[in-house]
Amino acid sequence: GHSTLDMARPVRTGRGEVVFAEGKKTEHLLEIVEVFLSRGENLLVSRVREDQLGPLLERFPRLVYHAEARCCTHVASPPPPCAHRVGVVTGGTSDVPVAEEAAITCEFYGVGVERVYDVGVAGINRLLARLEEMRSLRALVVVAGMEGALPSVVAGLVDRPVIGVPTSVGYGAALEGMTPLLAMLTSCVPGLAVVNIDNGFGAGYLASLIARL
Amino acid sequence: GHSTLDMARPVRTGRGEVVFAEGKKTEHLLEIVEVFLSRGENLLVSRVREDQLGPLLERFPRLVYHAEARCCTHVASPPPPCAHRVGVVTGGTSDVPVAEEAAITCEFYGVGVERVYDVGVAGINRLLARLEEMRSLRALVVVAGMEGALPSVVAGLVDRPVIGVPTSVGYGAALEGMTPLLAMLTSCVPGLAVVNIDNGFGAGYLASLIARL
Amino acid sequence: GHSTLDMARPVRTGRGEVVFAEGKKTEHLLEIVEVFLSRGENLLVSRVREDQLGPLLERFPRLVYHAEARCCTHVASPPPPCAHRVGVVTGGTSDVPVAEEAAITCEFYGVGVERVYDVGVAGINRLLARLEEMRSLRALVVVAGMEGALPSVVAGLVDRPVIGVPTSVGYGAALEGMTPLLAMLTSCVPGLAVVNIDNGFGAGYLASLIARL
Amino acid sequence: GHSTLDMARPVRTGRGEVVFAEGKKTEHLLEIVEVFLSRGENLLVSRVREDQLGPLLERFPRLVYHAEARCCTHVASPPPPCAHRVGVVTGGTSDVPVAEEAAITCEFYGVGVERVYDVGVAGINRLLARLEEMRSLRALVVVAGMEGALPSVVAGLVDRPVIGVPTSVGYGAALEGMTPLLAMLTSCVPGLAVVNIDNGFGAGYLASLIARL
Amino acid sequence: GHSTLDMARPVRTGRGEVVFAEGKKTEHLLEIVEVFLSRGENLLVSRVREDQLGPLLERFPRLVYHAEARCCTHVASPPPPCAHRVGVVTGGTSDVPVAEEAAITCEFYGVGVERVYDVGVAGINRLLARLEEMRSLRALVVVAGMEGALPSVVAGLVDRPVIGVPTSVGYGAALEGMTPLLAMLTSCVPGLAVVNIDNGFGAGYLASLIARL
Amino acid sequence: GHSTLDMARPVRTGRGEVVFAEGKKTEHLLEIVEVFLSRGENLLVSRVREDQLGPLLERFPRLVYHAEARCCTHVASPPPPCAHRVGVVTGGTSDVPVAEEAAITCEFYGVGVERVYDVGVAGINRLLARLEEMRSLRALVVVAGMEGALPSVVAGLVDRPVIGVPTSVGYGAALEGMTPLLAMLTSCVPGLAVVNIDNGFGAGYLASLIARL
Amino acid sequence: GHSTLDMARPVRTGRGEVVFAEGKKTEHLLEIVEVFLSRGENLLVSRVREDQLGPLLERFPRLVYHAEARCCTHVASPPPPCAHRVGVVTGGTSDVPVAEEAAITCEFYGVGVERVYDVGVAGINRLLARLEEMRSLRALVVVAGMEGALPSVVAGLVDRPVIGVPTSVGYGAALEGMTPLLAMLTSCVPGLAVVNIDNGFGAGYLASLIARL
Amino acid sequence: GHSTLDMARPVRTGRGEVVFAEGKKTEHLLEIVEVFLSRGENLLVSRVREDQLGPLLERFPRLVYHAEARCCTHVASPPPPCAHRVGVVTGGTSDVPVAEEAAITCEFYGVGVERVYDVGVAGINRLLARLEEMRSLRALVVVAGMEGALPSVVAGLVDRPVIGVPTSVGYGAALEGMTPLLAMLTSCVPGLAVVNIDNGFGAGYLASLIARL
Ligand SMILES: Nc1ncnc2c1ncn2[C@@H]1O[C@H](COP(=O)(O)O)[C@@H](O)[C@H]1O
Ligand SMILES: Nc1ncnc2c1ncn2[C@@H]1O[C@H](COP(=O)(O)O)[C@@H](O)[C@H]1O
Ligand SMILES: Nc1ncnc2c1ncn2[C@@H]1O[C@H](COP(=O)(O)O)[C@@H](O)[C@H]1O
Ligand SMILES: Nc1ncnc2c1ncn2[C@@H]1O[C@H](COP(=O)(O)O)[C@@H](O)[C@H]1O
Ligand SMILES: [Mg+2]
Ligand SMILES: [Mg+2]
Ligand SMILES: [Mg+2]
Ligand SMILES: [Mg+2]
Ligand SMILES: [Mg+2]
Ligand SMILES: [Mg+2]
Ligand SMILES: [Mg+2]
Ligand SMILES: [Mg+2]
Repeated sequence: GHSTLDMARPVRTGRGEVVFAEGKKTEHLLEIVEVFLSRGENLLVSRVREDQLGPLLERFPRLVYHAEARCCTHVASPPPPCAHRVGVVTGGTSDVPVAEEAAITCEFYGVGVERVYDVGVAGINRLLARLEEMRSLRALVVVAGMEGALPSVVAGLVDRPVIGVPTSVGYGAALEGMTPLLAMLTSCVPGLAVVNIDNGFGAGYLASLIARL
Repeated sequence: GHSTLDMARPVRTGRGEVVFAEGKKTEHLLEIVEVFLSRGENLLVSRVREDQLGPLLERFPRLVYHAEARCCTHVASPPPPCAHRVGVVTGGTSDVPVAEEAAITCEFYGVGVERVYDVGVAGINRLLARLEEMRSLRALVVVAGMEGALPSVVAGLVDRPVIGVPTSVGYGAALEGMTPLLAMLTSCVPGLAVVNIDNGFGAGYLASLIARL
Repeated sequence: GHSTLDMARPVRTGRGEVVFAEGKKTEHLLEIVEVFLSRGENLLVSRVREDQLGPLLERFPRLVYHAEARCCTHVASPPPPCAHRVGVVTGGTSDVPVAEEAAITCEFYGVGVERVYDVGVAGINRLLARLEEMRSLRALVVVAGMEGALPSVVAGLVDRPVIGVPTSVGYGAALEGMTPLLAMLTSCVPGLAVVNIDNGFGAGYLASLIARL
Repeated sequence: GHSTLDMARPVRTGRGEVVFAEGKKTEHLLEIVEVFLSRGENLLVSRVREDQLGPLLERFPRLVYHAEARCCTHVASPPPPCAHRVGVVTGGTSDVPVAEEAAITCEFYGVGVERVYDVGVAGINRLLARLEEMRSLRALVVVAGMEGALPSVVAGLVDRPVIGVPTSVGYGAALEGMTPLLAMLTSCVPGLAVVNIDNGFGAGYLASLIARL
Repeated sequence: GHSTLDMARPVRTGRGEVVFAEGKKTEHLLEIVEVFLSRGENLLVSRVREDQLGPLLERFPRLVYHAEARCCTHVASPPPPCAHRVGVVTGGTSDVPVAEEAAITCEFYGVGVERVYDVGVAGINRLLARLEEMRSLRALVVVAGMEGALPSVVAGLVDRPVIGVPTSVGYGAALEGMTPLLAMLTSCVPGLAVVNIDNGFGAGYLASLIARL
Repeated sequence: GHSTLDMARPVRTGRGEVVFAEGKKTEHLLEIVEVFLSRGENLLVSRVREDQLGPLLERFPRLVYHAEARCCTHVASPPPPCAHRVGVVTGGTSDVPVAEEAAITCEFYGVGVERVYDVGVAGINRLLARLEEMRSLRALVVVAGMEGALPSVVAGLVDRPVIGVPTSVGYGAALEGMTPLLAMLTSCVPGLAVVNIDNGFGAGYLASLIARL
Repeated sequence: GHSTLDMARPVRTGRGEVVFAEGKKTEHLLEIVEVFLSRGENLLVSRVREDQLGPLLERFPRLVYHAEARCCTHVASPPPPCAHRVGVVTGGTSDVPVAEEAAITCEFYGVGVERVYDVGVAGINRLLARLEEMRSLRALVVVAGMEGALPSVVAGLVDRPVIGVPTSVGYGAALEGMTPLLAMLTSCVPGLAVVNIDNGFGAGYLASLIARL
Repeated sequence: GHSTLDMARPVRTGRGEVVFAEGKKTEHLLEIVEVFLSRGENLLVSRVREDQLGPLLERFPRLVYHAEARCCTHVASPPPPCAHRVGVVTGGTSDVPVAEEAAITCEFYGVGVERVYDVGVAGINRLLARLEEMRSLRALVVVAGMEGALPSVVAGLVDRPVIGVPTSVGYGAALEGMTPLLAMLTSCVPGLAVVNIDNGFGAGYLASLIARL
C-alpha cells in the first residue's frame, strides 16, 4: 500500500537497487527486500539497525552482511568490470564506518576501492606517504569529522575529483557534523564537492558513477 | 611581500591559474595578474568588482571580459580539446550569473558547455522537454536558489554526476542561500554533490575535471 | 484543577474536540477524555504514546485506534457530509505516519481523502501518473522530509491550495525537519503554505476547513 | 536567451501572470513585461525597485502603480467576479506594505479585500471590535512582525482559513522575521498555515485561490 | 572539596538558600543539603531527579516534597509576611510543572500566589474572564511554550511587571523553547522581561523580590 | 487610515504615550505625533532617525531632543513624583546610547536615575567602588554587549531586581548581540530578567513600573 | 587495519601519547592501549566510558583510574620536573569533571596544578579571596558553563595567559555549551583564548605546553 | 562623563594601554587618546576608521599609522627587550590585515615577529618549506578564513602554543567567519586555542604575554 515502486529507474540505469533500512519497520523492510530479490535484482540494504539484522539474515540467507558498513548486499549478476579504481580516505579511525559504507557501495557497483584510513591532518606525514597511490585513482572519497580539513588538503595535492563526506564524529562545536560540513563547503581548494553528514552511500554512489564514465 | 605563489601547482596540473579578485585591493590584483600574464600562462580572474574592471582592462587589453559571469580570461595557449561536454542548468533567470561563472570556467579549461536556463520546478514541463539533450552530457552543473529542488529532480531523471550550486537568490527563509544548500545536501536522490553558495567557479572546475577524466 | 476547558469553542465551531496526548500524564489524559466523551462529543486524541494506549482503550472501549496515525477517534454523531475531497500526498514511505495523521483528521471532520503515497521527486514519473486525480480534489496536503521539494512540484502542476508538511525524516543537514520546512517556505511556486514539522493534524484540520467552505 | 517562458501555466490556470522585479536588471524587466503585455495578458509586477519605477511607467503608461504595495498591475480583461471576500489584517502600521502586497494581489485576481490594520496584541480590544466583520470573510491573511502572535489569536477567534505572513519588522531577537515565522508555525491554534517572511504576494495568491474554490 | 560555600549571601540577603539538584550526584547533594539544614536555614532543593528523591526524603524527613514542581522545601523559620501577592499564569496544562516551580519558589520566600492556569491564546475568553483578579496582583509570572504569545497579551492588558517564562513544550519549529523565548523578547508590548527556558525558579525568585520591595 | 489608535491604554494606565519612530515614514510620524500632542498628552518619540529629526523639531518646537538617547520628549503635565530611584549601569562607553534610552524613559515616567557607566568586568574594581550606591536603588538596568557578563555580576552583589539589556556592541562571535542575550538568560545568579537586544526603552519602562509599585 | 599510528609525533615531542576512548569499541581501545604500553610509553586514556573501564583495568592493571576526570594514566618514566605551576579554576561544582580532566592532563605532563573550584560570579568574593595565589601561577585554565563569565573576570584580574573552557552545564539558552563558548570568545578582556566545549584535555595540554616553555 | 578610566590596570601590568577606535565617535576618541598621551603612556589605537584617521593624525602627529593593520601606535618608553620571538602565519593574502594587527600588537609590547604569509592548505608545500623557522619561535598566531584548516595543520607539525584567529574572509557557508571559528575549535590536534573572528589584537596580546613569561 504505502510504497510506489519506481520500476523505470533500475531498468533505465542498469544499476542495482538500494533500500534505506534505518527508518523502516522490520516487517516493511522484509516486504520490500522480498520484492526486489524475487525479481532477481542486485540489492544493497544500507543502514541496517541491530534489531533488523537477525530477521533479515534469517529470512534471506543469501544476503551478505558487512558489519562495519552496517549494510547487506546480494549480487545476483555481477556488474560489468570497471577499469578504474576509487580511493576512500579517512581522517581518523572513528570515521571508518562511514568510509566502509562508501567502499561497499562502490564495490556493489563493480568499482574497486583503495582504502587509505587514519591519515588526518594531526600527522600529515601519514598522508604524504601515500600520495602517489592516491594520484593513480579515478576519484577520491574523503571522510572526516571534527574540523573536516582533510578533503581540502587532499584536493590540494591530488588533481582528481574529491567527494568530501563530513562525519558526526566530534563533540561540542563540531555540532554533530555541521562544522566539518560547512568547512568542506568553504574549502579554498577547487575540485571538491560535498555530500550530507555521514552519507557514505551517497559518496560511494557518485564516485562509482564517475569511475564508470 | 604578502603572496607566496604556488609554482608547483599549475606546472603539475597543466591547468590555467585562477585569481579570486573580489576581496583584493586593485593594486594587489594588478600585480598578481601581471606576474601570471608575464609567465605566459592561461589566466581566469573571477568575481571582478566593478571598480576593478576599468584598471584591469586598461592595463591588460588582452583580457576578455565576460559580463554576466563577472570574470576575465586570457588564453595564451588553448587547452587540448575535450571529447565530452558539460551541461549548466538553472532554475530561474536570476541564477544565470552564477551559472555563467560555471560555464566560462568550463570553457576556460577547454570543455564545451550546453546551457539549459530557467527550467525550474515551477513549470517542470520546461525541464522534461530537454531531457534527452541532458542525458547526452558528461556531467551536469545545476544552479538553483530558493528551495533548491532542481538538482534533486535532475539527478532523478539523468544518470550523470550532478553538481548542485545553491544561490543566494531569494529572501527571508532562503537565508541567503543556506536553505537551498541544506536542501541539496539532504536530497533523496543519489548521484549529487554540492559546492558552496554562489560558487559557480568551483562547480565549473569540478565538472571540467570530470569531463576530462 | 490545571485545565480551563474552553466551552465556547466546540459550540461555536460545531467541530469535534481534539486532545494532544503526547505531553500529558496518562491520568490527566484519561480525565480529559472522560469529560469530553461524557458530554457526547466527537473526539480525536492525537499523538497517543505507546504507554498511554492500553489504559486508554481499556477505559474507553468506544475509541477507535488508528495505528499508523497514532491517534484514537470517537464519532458520536457523524459530521454533515462534505461534497469535496482532499488529497494527501507523500514523498516517501517514511512520511506515511504524518500523512495518516492528516488523513484521519480530515475524515474525522467528515471530509473524504485520496491517498497518493511515495511519489517523491526521486522518480517524478510516479507523480505525473496521478496528476488528473490530484486536479480533481479540493485541496492537497503534501508531506515530505529531506529536501522537501515535493510541495513545490505539486503546486507547480495542480492549481489547488497546497498545504506543505515538512517531516523530520532524514539526518544530518536535514536538521530534524528544519531543512524541508525552510525549503517549502521559500518555494518559487505560489499557492502553497506550510505548517509545523510533522504536524499532520494541523494540515488535515486546515484542509478540511477549506474543503467545507 | 535566459528566460524559458512557461506558456502552459497562464493558459491552464486562466490566472494573470506575475513578474518578480526586485532581482532583475531593468532592461531584462522591461523585455519580460513587454512580452506579457504584447500578448494582452493581465500582469502583476511585484517588488518594483525605486530605480525601476521610472523606466517602467514611462515605457508602459498603461501600468497602474500601487505605491505602498510597491507593485504595478495591468488588467487587460477583468477576471470573473468572485462572490467571496478576503480579510487582510496587520498587527502594526509597519506591517502595512506587506499587507498591501497581499491585498493588491487578491484584487488583481478579482477577489475583494477587507483591510483590518493595526490591531495587534498590544491592545487586543481593537481586534475584538472587528470580530464579526472578520467572521463574514472567506479567508484571512494575517500579517505581523516581532513576536508574530496575531495569527494565533485570530485563528482562535475566527473559524476561517488563516494564512500567517511574518514580517521583518523588529530588531535584535526578531532575527529579521525568523522569530515571528517560527512563532506562527508553532501556533497552538489549528486552522493556520504560514508563508515566507514578507511574502505578501504568496499569501494573497493563496487567499484568492481559496476564495475562488 | 569541590564546593566553595558563599556564606556572605544568605546572611546579607536574609533569604533562604537554594540548591539545584538536577546535575549533582546524589551523594554530593546529600552532603550539601546536610550542611544547610544543620545550620538551621530555610532550604529549597529544585529540580530533584526521580532517583534522588528516595534517598533525600529518607535521610531528611523534614523536607516537604512538591511533586508537580519537582522540588523539596524546608522552612526552619518562616519569612516575614508580605502584603502583596504574585500571579502565576500558564498558556496550557503542559506548562504547569514550570509554573509550579515558580509558585513554590514565591511561597518559599513568603509571597502568596494566585494560580491562573490554561488560559492561552487559543481561547482568549478564558483569560479575559480573569483580568480583574490579575490586575490586583503585584507582579505576574506568565509561562508559555510553542509560540509564546501569552506574556505579550497579558502585558497588553495588565499594567504590572510581567516576567515571561518560555517552556520547552512543543515540537519542530518550537526549537525546544527557543521560539517562545525569542517571541517573548521581541514583544511589541512594554512591561515584560524574560528568563531562561523552563526557568520557573528564576521567575519566581524575581517576582518575590519585586513583591517584597 | 493605517493606524488604529488605542485610546483605552493611556487612559487606563495614566502613563504617557510612546511612538517608535525608526520604521516610520516621516510624514506618518508627523501625523501621529500631531494627534498625541493635540490631545495634550505626554509623549516620548523613541529611535528618531537623523532624517526625521529636522522636520520633527521644526514642526513641533515643544519637543525636547535627547541626542545620545536618540529620542524626543514632551511633558505636558509632569507625572506624580516617585519616591524611589533606578540605576542604569553599563559595561563600556559604547553601551551608553542604549543606557540613555533607558534613563530618559525612566525620567519621562517621573522616576529619577543614577547613571553608573563604564564599569564592566574588564576592571571589576570600578564596579566594586560603587556598590553601596547601587544597593540604595529600587531596581537596576544593566546594559552590556560582547560577553554580557555584567548583569550576572551585579545581580550577585546587589539584591534588587536587575533588568539585563544586551547590546549589539561587539563583532564576530558577538552575533550582533545574540551572544550577550543568551549569556544573560543563562545567568547562574537569580534576580535577573532580560529584554531584547538594544531595547533600552523596554528596560526603562519596566524599571519605572517597578519603581512606582 | 584501521589505524595509522603516527610514530613521528611522540618521538619528536617527547610527550606521552593520548588515546580518546569515548568513541571507540572496547576491543579496538584495548588493542591500541596494548601497542602503546608495550612500547613502554607514558599513556593517558581520556573519556573512558563506564562499560570500557572494567575490561581496561582488568587487562592493564598498571593503569591508574582518575574517577572524576574519567581518565586512566600510566607513567612509565616520569617527565622532567617543571618549575612552574598551572591553575585550574571553575565557576561551579558541576564544572569539576571537566576541570579534573584538565588538571590530570597537566600532571601527566609533569606540571603541578593549583585547584580553585566553585568561585563563579554569583559570589565574586570567593574569587577575590584567592587572587594572590592565582597571580603566582604560570597560566590559568578557567572552566565555566551557563553564561561563561568567569574567564573574562579572571583575565581582568590576573595578567597570565588564560585558557577558557566552556562546559555544557546549563539548560535552555545555554545551548549545550554554545552560549558560554560564544561569550568567552567575545570577552572584552585580552589575554584569553578558548578551546572546545568540555575540552578539559585540550586546555590542560596547552597549559602544560606554556608552563614548560 | 561616560568613561570610567581603569587606572589600576596599566600600573599593575606595566603594559601599554589600548583604545578600540571603531565604535567610538571621533570626538570621544580624541578625548580618550588625549588623556593617555598626556600621561606619557605607550598607546595602541586599534581599528581606526578611515574618517577618524585624518583628525587623529592631525591632532596627535606623534602617532605612527600602520596602514594594513589599521592601527596607530605611540611608544613613549620602549618596553624591556624580549628574548623570544613570535610567528604570525596566514592562509591567504586576504588574511593579512588581521595578521598585521596581531603583529603590530606583539611589536608594540616589545616582542619580535616572524611573518609567514599565504601558506594555506591549498598548496601545503609552501608551509612545509618554512617548518624549521616556525619551530624556533615561542608561540604562533595562525590566521585563516574559509575552512580554517591551517591552525590544525600547523599545530600538528610544530610543538608550540598555537593561537588560531578565524577571519571573515570567504562567502556563503563561511558564515562571516563562524565556519573557520568552529573548525578551529574542533581541531583534532591539541596545543591550539582560539580567539574571536578577525581578532588580531587579542591574538597578538596573548602571544606577547606568552613570549614574555
Ligand atoms: N569565484 C570563486 N569562488 C571560490 N573560489 C575561487 C573563486 N575564484 C577562484 N577561487 C579559488 O581561489 C584561488 C585563488 O585565490 P587567491 O590566491 O586568493 O587569488 C584559486 O586557486 C581558486 O581555487
Ligand atoms: N513578491 C513575491 N514574493 C515571492 N514570489 C513572488 C513574488 N512575486 C512573484 N513571485 C513569484 O515569482 C514568479 C515569477 O518569477 P520570475 O519568473 O523570476 O519573474 C511568479 O510566478 C510568482 O510565483
Ligand atoms: N531550577 C533552577 N533553575 C536555574 N537556576 C537555579 C535553579 N535552582 C537553583 N538555581 C540557582 O542555582 C544556584 C545553586 O546552584 P548550586 O550551587 O550548583 O546548587 C542557586 O543559588 C540558584 O541561583
Ligand atoms: N525603542 C523601542 N524599542 C522597542 N519598543 C518600543 C520602542 N519605542 C517604543 N516601543 C514600543 O512601540 C510601541 C509604539 O509602536 P508604534 O505604534 O509602532 O509607534 C510603544 O507602545 C512601545 O511599546
Ligand atoms: Mg589517530
Ligand atoms: Mg521564471
Ligand atoms: Mg521510495
Ligand atoms: Mg501602534
Ligand atoms: Mg487547553
Ligand atoms: Mg573602557
Ligand atoms: Mg554553588
Ligand atoms: Mg593564494
